[in-house]
Amino acid sequence: MSLIVQKYGGSSVHSTERIKRVAEHVVATRRQGHDVVVVVSAMGDTTDELLDLARALTPAAAPRELDVLLTTGERISNALMAIAIESLGTEARSFSGAQAGVRTTGAAGRARIVEVVPDRVRSALDRGAVAVVAGFQGISRDTGDVTTLGRGGSDTTAVALAAALKADLCEIYTDVDGVYSADPRLVPDARLLENVGYEVMHELAMSGAKVLAPRSVAYAARHQVPIRVRSSFSTNPGTMVAGSADLPPAEHSSVTGVAHDSSKARITLAGVPDAPELTSRILHLVADVEAELHFAVRGRTDISLVLPAADGPPALRALRQECADLGVEELHYDEQIGKVSLVGNGLLSHPGVLATCCETLTEAGVHLETITTSDIRITALCPAPQLPHAVRAWHTAFALAAPELATVHAGSGR
Amino acid sequence: MSLIVQKYGGSSVHSTERIKRVAEHVVATRRQGHDVVVVVSAMGDTTDELLDLARALTPAAAPRELDVLLTTGERISNALMAIAIESLGTEARSFSGAQAGVRTTGAAGRARIVEVVPDRVRSALDRGAVAVVAGFQGISRDTGDVTTLGRGGSDTTAVALAAALKADLCEIYTDVDGVYSADPRLVPDARLLENVGYEVMHELAMSGAKVLAPRSVAYAARHQVPIRVRSSFSTNPGTMVAGSADLPPAEHSSVTGVAHDSSKARITLAGVPDAPELTSRILHLVADVEAELHFAVRGRTDISLVLPAADGPPALRALRQECADLGVEELHYDEQIGKVSLVGNGLLSHPGVLATCCETLTEAGVHLETITTSDIRITALCPAPQLPHAVRAWHTAFALAAPELATVHAGSGR
Repeated sequence: MSLIVQKYGGSSVHSTERIKRVAEHVVATRRQGHDVVVVVSAMGDTTDELLDLARALTPAAAPRELDVLLTTGERISNALMAIAIESLGTEARSFSGAQAGVRTTGAAGRARIVEVVPDRVRSALDRGAVAVVAGFQGISRDTGDVTTLGRGGSDTTAVALAAALKADLCEIYTDVDGVYSADPRLVPDARLLENVGYEVMHELAMSGAKVLAPRSVAYAARHQVPIRVRSSFSTNPGTMVAGSADLPPAEHSSVTGVAHDSSKARITLAGVPDAPELTSRILHLVADVEAELHFAVRGRTDISLVLPAADGPPALRALRQECADLGVEELHYDEQIGKVSLVGNGLLSHPGVLATCCETLTEAGVHLETITTSDIRITALCPAPQLPHAVRAWHTAFALAAPELATVHAGSGR
Repeated sequence: MSLIVQKYGGSSVHSTERIKRVAEHVVATRRQGHDVVVVVSAMGDTTDELLDLARALTPAAAPRELDVLLTTGERISNALMAIAIESLGTEARSFSGAQAGVRTTGAAGRARIVEVVPDRVRSALDRGAVAVVAGFQGISRDTGDVTTLGRGGSDTTAVALAAALKADLCEIYTDVDGVYSADPRLVPDARLLENVGYEVMHELAMSGAKVLAPRSVAYAARHQVPIRVRSSFSTNPGTMVAGSADLPPAEHSSVTGVAHDSSKARITLAGVPDAPELTSRILHLVADVEAELHFAVRGRTDISLVLPAADGPPALRALRQECADLGVEELHYDEQIGKVSLVGNGLLSHPGVLATCCETLTEAGVHLETITTSDIRITALCPAPQLPHAVRAWHTAFALAAPELATVHAGSGR
């Protein structure tokens, strides 16, 4: 008998029909003798509907109250899940993030988990009940206010609960079969990965793979929580994410997969005078934005900020106001750019990997704008329309396709 | 400067447009220098929509989880109200029932308030903020579970908060102008009452007047909380409900008004053997139902149970099973009966009131089935279709009409 945390995303609980199916799966797990904690996201579009109500009142809702509003979505799906489980004859109890002991920082809308004190969850389990915990939310350790954890918060709730309860496994149920070597919508012969280490998974997530939130992977790595990513709609065992010591040695090569991200925009300040304090002033202007900076020095310096597309227009406005003041010659804005990343262990210690990256993009007709490297990631920026070509070029060049599909691929002469 | 608790019902916050209007009214009150606590019900049909979701899963949802589900409705309207108030430049903070210190018994779906410890509400007021509190909900003192207060729970939340905060006034905003001498939909010349004492108001509420929940009136009487019932949609000062010592002496007569209730059914057990333990056995069978009992002795005894129509069918099934066993000769069921009540101080000490009640019903062609009396109430049962005639007959007989309208009425020869 083990303790399993199961997290179900919004698409898995989109309707009462789906909630029933998830409840049946939870009850089956419980009847196998496991202790089960279920973490549920809000139903399908609930969060967007709640945001629409707030926007109808004001474009600038108070962040604290927006958090209160949004947390009701998970409270609803949670109560419904507990009702569905109990209707199948298995005891269940739902808990808000606060009741489950999820304590956070005070930053409304993007709080971070500080600690988890799951006493009530533990005592529900001790009584034989399934504990159903609202994802994405907690309570501020300082103010006692309800907080939300930001994007991917429910994954982090599940992992943090698994860590605090010393669970044997954290299962993340989603609408795909697991982690693939590339997005199967772009690369039809992408391979389902059986095992991925924390570091590589974190890098994939940071580079645009949406299957797991980066923060939840980092939390899992820190607390050594094994994660299984799998589908709510199949029995495929999915992908195991764990420390490399707990995984079998890598199978084919050190390259794990190709991630891509088409949600970024770019602001380029061309001809920036070479004064060090200017960089910090630019960063200060866009302080609330998760921006990467790129420098190109040609006499005067070009600085590019690669940032989420939604943050682009306000950042641009802020920078434009200061531009003359900063002595910047030109300001360019790309509202969408393509970003492709090759992720795997020790990439730069394998001779030729970086060269192959550059060559294959050129051969595929992709205009390579910038390339950055770390020991486990090589990232290229390219025009947004060329991104699918770039993903497929790298996926083929590093032989990442599923073996059986690769054979078909070669034989069919496509 | 005083402290005012304002409660707004579901129709007052039915849409974001109405929430904005209420927020403007709250902010106007705050700017007059008053401390303001706002209690908000769920938006329009939210509660029914949530119940539909639960019913799609199972006809018998776990009561504890149903409470969690339903309390989200008030959390949503509450957060939206705080957002709307803050968008007008006045600080506001929303609180759940639990955060506002509303502690209850553990009975899911029909918890009662045990105590209110509004420390967080008080400190929000001390900081100059408007406190927005979710009605209809609390936290069980014993289990820490979220609870709901049952029908009219938001009125009770408002009154209980007003009592705990020693508020100067509790305003109940609704969709009518106040408490009338009869339902204006049945009696067009019904008079808006300026003042009503707690006892009479409680009796009116118990007899079917929907403007205030009986439990909230009882709570107000116990803690001497003055209530003003008024409309969200007009500036009419409405009706003051207070202790008789705090009100001017009654104006016209001791009869205050006529209440009616068309939501009741009746089960009649005809020919019950005269054994005392049978009554307690019958009551035991319908223990969860708020039933009034009527006895008619004619050789053998007829027992009638007058109960909420929704409780009729299950109670009937329970009684039918036991009927032969109980030695009951016949079982009758009226799925809807009419109930009309005359309410006022010292009714039976006024000679002729009871006689007038009986005579006017007969003259109006109403079949009087049962009549019961207390010192402040006379209640008659009649066939449901005759109920409007009964209400109008008593309202006219005791000259309860609004004076100006009564004149017009007489003059126009209608």
